[in-house]
Amino acid sequence: MADINRQWLINGNPRGRALSEDDFKYNEAALEPLVDGQVRVRTQYLSFDPSQKGQMENVSGYASGNEVGDVMGARGIGTVVESRADGIEEGFLVSGPLGWQEFSTHAGRTLEILEDDGFLTAHLGPLGGTGLTAYFGLLRIGRPEPGDTVVVSGAAGAVGSITGQIAKLMGCRAVGTAGGAEKCAWLVDELGYDAAIDYKNEKVKARLRETCPDGINVFFDNVGGPVLNDALAVIAPFARVVICGGISRYEQETLPPGPPNYFNIVFRQATMQGFLLIAYASEFATARKRLRGWIADGKIVYKEDVQEGFENIPATLLRLFSGANKGKQLLKL
Amino acid sequence: MADINRQWLINGNPRGRALSEDDFKYNEAALEPLVDGQVRVRTQYLSFDPSQKGQMENVSGYASGNEVGDVMGARGIGTVVESRADGIEEGFLVSGPLGWQEFSTHAGRTLEILEDDGFLTAHLGPLGGTGLTAYFGLLRIGRPEPGDTVVVSGAAGAVGSITGQIAKLMGCRAVGTAGGAEKCAWLVDELGYDAAIDYKNEKVKARLRETCPDGINVFFDNVGGPVLNDALAVIAPFARVVICGGISRYEQETLPPGPPNYFNIVFRQATMQGFLLIAYASEFATARKRLRGWIADGKIVYKEDVQEGFENIPATLLRLFSGANKGKQLLKL
Repeated sequence: MADINRQWLINGNPRGRALSEDDFKYNEAALEPLVDGQVRVRTQYLSFDPSQKGQMENVSGYASGNEVGDVMGARGIGTVVESRADGIEEGFLVSGPLGWQEFSTHAGRTLEILEDDGFLTAHLGPLGGTGLTAYFGLLRIGRPEPGDTVVVSGAAGAVGSITGQIAKLMGCRAVGTAGGAEKCAWLVDELGYDAAIDYKNEKVKARLRETCPDGINVFFDNVGGPVLNDALAVIAPFARVVICGGISRYEQETLPPGPPNYFNIVFRQATMQGFLLIAYASEFATARKRLRGWIADGKIVYKEDVQEGFENIPATLLRLFSGANKGKQLLKL
Repeated sequence: MADINRQWLINGNPRGRALSEDDFKYNEAALEPLVDGQVRVRTQYLSFDPSQKGQMENVSGYASGNEVGDVMGARGIGTVVESRADGIEEGFLVSGPLGWQEFSTHAGRTLEILEDDGFLTAHLGPLGGTGLTAYFGLLRIGRPEPGDTVVVSGAAGAVGSITGQIAKLMGCRAVGTAGGAEKCAWLVDELGYDAAIDYKNEKVKARLRETCPDGINVFFDNVGGPVLNDALAVIAPFARVVICGGISRYEQETLPPGPPNYFNIVFRQATMQGFLLIAYASEFATARKRLRGWIADGKIVYKEDVQEGFENIPATLLRLFSGANKGKQLLKL
């Protein structure tokens, strides 16, 4: 085993601006010997998520911040290369907060042990945080009923693509917004969305009215900004608006205005609600089992965009923010 | 009885601007004979509410619009001067949609028969729509628990003043915002609010942080605009934000931006919800009985600002929007 660990460190705070590759800095660190209870993992796959930028910004919010000089945080899947922890052996596949580095050291109990059952990388997507976010956000906050019209913004993204499919399998109509004809075709042809709206080339509010003639019962928002405002204009009585994400807000210098149509929640007796996934931790195992069953049955499909190579890690996070990824953004080391 | 009915008609649509007295026009109309089932009422008191401007604007929303040339709509209390309806006799006191006129004609069943029990005008305030709005908005949408901190904007208004008192009698802390030292003193000294914030002379966000050290559990918003945004910055985990009104929005030319801090409902796992009073119609009787009991016990106090004179009706609605009223705005004919 190498005794040098290659890493990417945080080198800047991107608050109020777009990320750049200069926000990260290459580093080499010595690997220290393990102590009792510790495990060393070689990274195989890294997951890329919009919330990583939020974490770098160190604003109170989702997660504990990461400071300049820290190894960039990231979830990943890896192989145990050395273990001094009970119940974890060399060769085990695990997922956990591996970070942007070739090797990472953990207290054994902080890692989740995985089976290589053909769904390995799904543990960073539909069986990981993004799938669970779709599951609990839609079911617990959106509370859809069969026959409801569920609209998902960012519907081709890692969370949105799962959200629409869960809505479909429970008897809802699903309408998604995405950028570009290719993503929209994927929503309808592969994921079973009833309609897709190309926000880059179509008038979103008019298309929402057209595709949701009885109004929107559940709006699951991953984007914020104009699409949230347009959806608020088209909500049905007693609608539930799930605020899951706001990727449109991430690169703005100052906090952008909220949706002028927010007051429509009075006229429509509607609810806007936010949530944090961690609130449902006690139910993750049940949710994963159901999601896994739906994947095995072909009721939920997913797509991965797997980049490769240690040197491409920073560019892959930028790729996610550019919207170039097609499916869940991963990188294989 | 006079055979001429003096009235104020709608003469303009104030959408996107402040009301003016020119939006109303004096009129005299002949009183037609009653037909079977009808009742004629002489107006004694008229109620003034912010939603009346919204109704004049004829935008989809709260209520069916009123057109230019119609008698201006208003709730009121009056005396039956002639009846051809079963169960309603001359001399009965009634409340209903009397409008800005000396006499009004109604199908008997559309009127509510009142007792003159010393709380007569309360039926236009704490026992009427404003009290019921406070009751259902706070209890059903805000869902406060004893020990919670409940913040009310427009706390010296007809709805806000009742909201804070219900919060207090169920064991919550109550903090109100109002304009001016006199209103703020009234909140604390007479209504039992724990603290009041003078939005005209104090920094609202800093004062909210000071008076709500554990965060806001329930924010009951009658105002919208900056105070809603400031409150969203100070909400506690799992807070409920009740969108009841938005008087700050009524005189703006274009739809003002929503609150930039709306995204804080994600970090705080919070809920923003609107409601329409009519949803609770089946429970109005129960709520009125409770409110009446609290008033009789001195647990809820209320203040009325009673203007006088038919000729002063339009100016009294403008008075409400100027914030000059001290308590529920009424006019006695």
